[in-house]
Amino acid sequence: MTDCPMCRKWQDDADLQIAELEQCYVLLNRDQFFPGYCFVFTREHVTELFHLDVATRQAVIEEVNDVAAALAAVFKPAKMNYELLGNMLPHMHWHLVPRFTTEPLWPKPIWSEPHDEVQLTGAEYAERIELIKDKLRDP
Amino acid sequence: MTDCPMCRKWQDDADLQIAELEQCYVLLNRDQFFPGYCFVFTREHVTELFHLDVATRQAVIEEVNDVAAALAAVFKPAKMNYELLGNMLPHMHWHLVPRFTTEPLWPKPIWSEPHDEVQLTGAEYAERIELIKDKLRDP
Repeated sequence: MTDCPMCRKWQDDADLQIAELEQCYVLLNRDQFFPGYCFVFTREHVTELFHLDVATRQAVIEEVNDVAAALAAVFKPAKMNYELLGNMLPHMHWHLVPRFTTEPLWPKPIWSEPHDEVQLTGAEYAERIELIKDKLRDP
Repeated sequence: MTDCPMCRKWQDDADLQIAELEQCYVLLNRDQFFPGYCFVFTREHVTELFHLDVATRQAVIEEVNDVAAALAAVFKPAKMNYELLGNMLPHMHWHLVPRFTTEPLWPKPIWSEPHDEVQLTGAEYAERIELIKDKLRDP
C-alpha cells in the first residue's frame, strides 16, 4: 500500500534503522523520551495477528521477543511494555518500550500523559542504535 | 506468589470467567467501557515474554491470538488492541481491547483519557461471556 506511512517508514527514517529481520524491520523511535523505545513492524502490510498463518505469526513474535530481550539487556528497565495498537496506522507495528521507575509517568501507561518529544543528536542516535544492534547480533 | 492480585484474579472474579486454556486464563474486564475488553493472563506467575521458553511463549501467543480472533468475530471492532504492560502488576496479563470508530477516545490509545467505569448487570455480563465462549469453542 503506497499510501501507508508504515510501508515507507523504513526508508523515510533511514537514520533510525536498527535491523532488517526476516519478518520485521526494527527502528528506533525518533522520540526518545522513553530511552530505547523501538518499533518492530512487519515488512508486509498486515494488520491483525489473526490474519497471519501460524508460522508467520510465531516468527513475528520471536522477532518481537528478541528485540525486547535486547532492549532489556541494554537499558535494564524495570519492565518492558509491548503494544500492538494500529488504530491510526493499521500496518502491524509493535511499540517496544523499556520502562523505568525513575520516569515521571511510571508506572502508568506511556499514553496516560502527553510529553514533549526528546530528540537526540545524530551521534547519540547512532550510539544507541549500535548498542541495540550489538545485543541483537550477540544476545 | 500469594501476594500477587493476578495470581488470585481467576478466583476473585469468578463471575467474569470465560475460559481456562492450557497456558492462560481468559476473563472479561469488569469495566466494559470498551465492549468486549478481556484479560488473557498466564496461569504461572511470569513477567516478560523473553523469560518463557519458545514453546511456552508460542503457546501463550496462540491463546492470545485465539481470544483476539473471537473478540473480533463477536464485536466486529475496527481494530483489536493488544497490550502487555505489567508496570503495576508484573504477572503477565494481556489487555485485549476491541476498538470502535464510534468511541469517544477513537483512535487514541485506551489510556489517553480517563473514563468512568461501565458496569453491566449480572445478566449482561453473563450474556457477553457466553457469546465469547461460544466463539472460542467454535471459531
